[in-house]
Amino acid sequence: MAIQLAVIGAAGYAGEELLRILTRHRRVDVAFITSRKYAGQALSNVFPRFRESGLKFSAPDVEQIAEICDVVFLALPHGLATEYALPLLKAGLKVIDISADFRLKSPEKYKEYYQEDHPAAELLSEAVYGLPERYREQIKGARLIACPGCYPTSSILPVAPLLESGLVSPDGIVVSSMSGVTGTGRKAALPLTFPECNESLRAYGTVAHRHLPEIEQELAFAAGLDREIAINFVPHLVPVNRGINSTILLNANEGCSLERIAEAYGKAYANEPFVRVLPAGSFSDTKYVTMTNYCEIAYNIDSHTSKVILTSVIDNLTKGASGQAVQCMNIIFGFEETEGLI
Amino acid sequence: MAIQLAVIGAAGYAGEELLRILTRHRRVDVAFITSRKYAGQALSNVFPRFRESGLKFSAPDVEQIAEICDVVFLALPHGLATEYALPLLKAGLKVIDISADFRLKSPEKYKEYYQEDHPAAELLSEAVYGLPERYREQIKGARLIACPGCYPTSSILPVAPLLESGLVSPDGIVVSSMSGVTGTGRKAALPLTFPECNESLRAYGTVAHRHLPEIEQELAFAAGLDREIAINFVPHLVPVNRGINSTILLNANEGCSLERIAEAYGKAYANEPFVRVLPAGSFSDTKYVTMTNYCEIAYNIDSHTSKVILTSVIDNLTKGASGQAVQCMNIIFGFEETEGLI
Amino acid sequence: MAIQLAVIGAAGYAGEELLRILTRHRRVDVAFITSRKYAGQALSNVFPRFRESGLKFSAPDVEQIAEICDVVFLALPHGLATEYALPLLKAGLKVIDISADFRLKSPEKYKEYYQEDHPAAELLSEAVYGLPERYREQIKGARLIACPGCYPTSSILPVAPLLESGLVSPDGIVVSSMSGVTGTGRKAALPLTFPECNESLRAYGTVAHRHLPEIEQELAFAAGLDREIAINFVPHLVPVNRGINSTILLNANEGCSLERIAEAYGKAYANEPFVRVLPAGSFSDTKYVTMTNYCEIAYNIDSHTSKVILTSVIDNLTKGASGQAVQCMNIIFGFEETEGLI
Amino acid sequence: MAIQLAVIGAAGYAGEELLRILTRHRRVDVAFITSRKYAGQALSNVFPRFRESGLKFSAPDVEQIAEICDVVFLALPHGLATEYALPLLKAGLKVIDISADFRLKSPEKYKEYYQEDHPAAELLSEAVYGLPERYREQIKGARLIACPGCYPTSSILPVAPLLESGLVSPDGIVVSSMSGVTGTGRKAALPLTFPECNESLRAYGTVAHRHLPEIEQELAFAAGLDREIAINFVPHLVPVNRGINSTILLNANEGCSLERIAEAYGKAYANEPFVRVLPAGSFSDTKYVTMTNYCEIAYNIDSHTSKVILTSVIDNLTKGASGQAVQCMNIIFGFEETEGLI
Repeated sequence: MAIQLAVIGAAGYAGEELLRILTRHRRVDVAFITSRKYAGQALSNVFPRFRESGLKFSAPDVEQIAEICDVVFLALPHGLATEYALPLLKAGLKVIDISADFRLKSPEKYKEYYQEDHPAAELLSEAVYGLPERYREQIKGARLIACPGCYPTSSILPVAPLLESGLVSPDGIVVSSMSGVTGTGRKAALPLTFPECNESLRAYGTVAHRHLPEIEQELAFAAGLDREIAINFVPHLVPVNRGINSTILLNANEGCSLERIAEAYGKAYANEPFVRVLPAGSFSDTKYVTMTNYCEIAYNIDSHTSKVILTSVIDNLTKGASGQAVQCMNIIFGFEETEGLI
Repeated sequence: MAIQLAVIGAAGYAGEELLRILTRHRRVDVAFITSRKYAGQALSNVFPRFRESGLKFSAPDVEQIAEICDVVFLALPHGLATEYALPLLKAGLKVIDISADFRLKSPEKYKEYYQEDHPAAELLSEAVYGLPERYREQIKGARLIACPGCYPTSSILPVAPLLESGLVSPDGIVVSSMSGVTGTGRKAALPLTFPECNESLRAYGTVAHRHLPEIEQELAFAAGLDREIAINFVPHLVPVNRGINSTILLNANEGCSLERIAEAYGKAYANEPFVRVLPAGSFSDTKYVTMTNYCEIAYNIDSHTSKVILTSVIDNLTKGASGQAVQCMNIIFGFEETEGLI
Repeated sequence: MAIQLAVIGAAGYAGEELLRILTRHRRVDVAFITSRKYAGQALSNVFPRFRESGLKFSAPDVEQIAEICDVVFLALPHGLATEYALPLLKAGLKVIDISADFRLKSPEKYKEYYQEDHPAAELLSEAVYGLPERYREQIKGARLIACPGCYPTSSILPVAPLLESGLVSPDGIVVSSMSGVTGTGRKAALPLTFPECNESLRAYGTVAHRHLPEIEQELAFAAGLDREIAINFVPHLVPVNRGINSTILLNANEGCSLERIAEAYGKAYANEPFVRVLPAGSFSDTKYVTMTNYCEIAYNIDSHTSKVILTSVIDNLTKGASGQAVQCMNIIFGFEETEGLI
Repeated sequence: MAIQLAVIGAAGYAGEELLRILTRHRRVDVAFITSRKYAGQALSNVFPRFRESGLKFSAPDVEQIAEICDVVFLALPHGLATEYALPLLKAGLKVIDISADFRLKSPEKYKEYYQEDHPAAELLSEAVYGLPERYREQIKGARLIACPGCYPTSSILPVAPLLESGLVSPDGIVVSSMSGVTGTGRKAALPLTFPECNESLRAYGTVAHRHLPEIEQELAFAAGLDREIAINFVPHLVPVNRGINSTILLNANEGCSLERIAEAYGKAYANEPFVRVLPAGSFSDTKYVTMTNYCEIAYNIDSHTSKVILTSVIDNLTKGASGQAVQCMNIIFGFEETEGLI
């Protein structure tokens, strides 16, 4: 029997990607897709790719959804998810939030980076960070999943095993990332038009990007530290539709070697269905993971500076958002973890 | 009276860009353009943009060139420049080399990174590194100019003034760069085809890239150090035709502030015709410098890690190669430095 | 029970797309993938996307394939398919050829457009043109399928129903098409590099393109004519990876109207799983069909010139090649026609 | 002595291109650039490329402009030009309009295609169509120039000489064009964002596009006809920044041959500085004309349908708009016609 689900905020790129995956998923029925703006219109008016789906946008009606659904995906801008999460959780549904609302454990950090008080700080400790490779057991029993951001996914997966194994230092970590333009959301804005993005390479948010505290939080956990760590994270916008590459420099600890890195990754990811670790000295490329839920990791050591250099690529909309959300759902409901995703 | 010049190896992208600039330059005549492969053919067979130029490729004939020309641009793959530079210098011509042959002062470094003995090590000490913002006086009297690489240009210009002023440490420098595909040269190769580059983001040469020792050499000079420095340089290939963005992280020294950085740049570049330093906290974008000889620099300080973060953009073919070569020529011959370039 | 299949010539873009589809298809086992060039190497060396597949290239061994397989896909350059088709057919296998070798019924036309005698003219009458929307019944019992070219698929599907219904004239048909660069095949060639294709729009083969006689043949059949028809077909190369748009102008016959066009399409395609006819006056867009097996058709009438104007979009690698090939296989073996394709 | 000029509506792509050209033009001073939206701001706030220009937007003040300037460029959306043209002409200035307001000779056609009465129909007969290759003599003495649309420029230049020489019929002309995204103007709109345009090929305005009557008007003039002609014009949006390709099919008249076409073009364009006619059977490519004022024309005959097939490429912002406007200004003021343009 299929479970029933709703996607709230289905008219953005994360919503589109969720529907691409969920309409092929064999264990679910998409009962509701909501959009205030497009309520009443066919999904295919907005995304003609789905002409055969028969789906239609409705206005979000929490009661109706709660009555019918088992799980709800929230694909909303940050700050709006709480409004839906609270009543839906109360009604006993599972909530998988793709926004940034429940990712940080600390309400203070939330306020520092989002410039407002968290609307439901009591949920922060309950929410499980939806990175299956790190929190599979907790996800199984979770009511509320906070799906990781795209940049954090591409950063935490390659770095965490090396911190856990003590091969690299938690200090002095540098993450330089590039993202495709779908990462900015589906919206009319002059800097996002084709002529402004094509043949353009630009950094943005070089300091205090909102994904920074999320990466720092998870890497401190991975390092087993009680204190905070401070890293540098610099995102760039580049002219591709989909894909993130994160290039990461880490200070190698004594005894770090290519063999020991391989070992650490083997221990962490040998059985992971969606992590590929390439042979030492290889290069990853976003084009091999776009439209998939894979994270591909390449590593090397620069002995002349004693740095470990990692590159990690994902599709920002799949492993970086909607694919990972579905992976979490599969875990929660005991489905094959790869269902709908390969 | 116009000077006479030759471009040896004019059938690549650097050659094309040289000719775009030189055919509009009011003080020069392009007397020869050479290409072994296309000798006898019209330039417009290879680059239809130049249909009106009337130029024709010839095989490179050093004697004939030496008889007529005042200056020669070498736009050849590394390792080939020496063969032409030696007889042309002997014949009294000025030689402006766009290849990598004369950039390193140390023949040992050359051998380490290029895997062969330098063919004319005696010229290394004479060659002047063709970065006008650093070596204008030496360029004036030089016989042999070694034009900087594209990545080094985009790295040295933003970093050198901060090292000179002592605002940042020469240790722990990280350069993460992205380049357009013309940077790889004009050649048929599967990884460079449109379907393989479009929607692709990939690192390459993360360790020991050939531009690395050049950056290290010049930054050590800027820091006034006798010892070598070791930096990290990670290049990426991204789907644009032209443009390099270098994002650079530096350890701030005591007393470093946005004001003092502005001061250091003001001192270094206030009168430079081709360097733009943006207001603190701005972002540079390659699209504002492509097809120009400008280098645009943006800076910020991340106080939570005590890092100075720079981004620097150039057109890899103009300020990163041919435009800079012409700028050097203008200096040598006493022309207006911006002639042909704005 | 799954059928066993081989893909001969699996290292090109059509081969890659075949494998993308076939590795998710629930009724088949990929027993062999062959490539002379890559024999012995893992598929993932060439296409890292398939790291999890475990597939390996072998040299094409017809006997071995014939022993094990039920069906073979030929994804070879034209002229080479015959060599494999003959023995495989003799051994009782089904052969689905993606090359151009068996598309034309007339050996004379083949010689005119391919400048050589057809190597197995006796097969031309037996081969079934693999366009399910036109030849589903014949495909069911066919031994040899000649999959249509990408441009012909995008042209024949929108035009044929209007000719059959007599709404438009078979004379004066103009097809102007644009194709993404994967349409040229996977090969190193200077005109196909990123810098040469990006920011470039170019016509090619404006006269006597090899897909022309194929379109003319099928449209003459659709019009029920004994005589040949002559159309104009102009292809263009544009900077996208995947996708073909064909814009088609037809002379409207007396009585042609938007309603009657809608009727004709309804009759032809109402039950077709992979043809979408948009409402009159809509516009099709390749981005809604890439990575799918759909053909999307838009139509309008320009009353001031009495022309019917059609636009038709497909993914050149899916409905234009490999997806359609799998659709044919599904029909032949009695599988769900959409299996592996949605 | 330099003439003084103003650009009204300088914050769009045509304005940017005008300023790129005019800031390098040796015979003019840019006295005013206006923008209601950006009045008071530096030009470089909107277009950082112009950081060195020192130019600043002001609100359009007709009196002040009239007092100081000799010529005004109007780079406004259609319908707004008249408001400025009337008082400026009255004050004795030359007006060069890049909008569509004065291109059509017939106020009825204007109303038909623009759905409103022409605001100053009395100017339509006076305005000179600013295509120097067709109207150079009239441009010399004109007060008001109506610069051709981008698609019309790319269509009229290749077709007019063949109509004049009687080699092709004015009936049955088909123009299928592709344009880069800057052609839609500089504006925030969801369909123009990078993710919506990249990897997308789409027709639009297949019937009754606003450039259609302009092409028909000029081709009827070229054919020497008193009657109207009706052609088909189908534009497409493709993922490049700049460039238009128009592919044109014409019915060859008796006696038409490649030689006679070459002759007709030679007669029309042998001395034209900005028209390149390629050898018969060649292919034009937008990448050879972008950022230039050239129109490049290729031709062939398809004998099996008796069609002449032309392809014609321009940069939509240069020869298709601002470059052509400057060419007209050069003619009016007796400057070298190519000044600022090569």
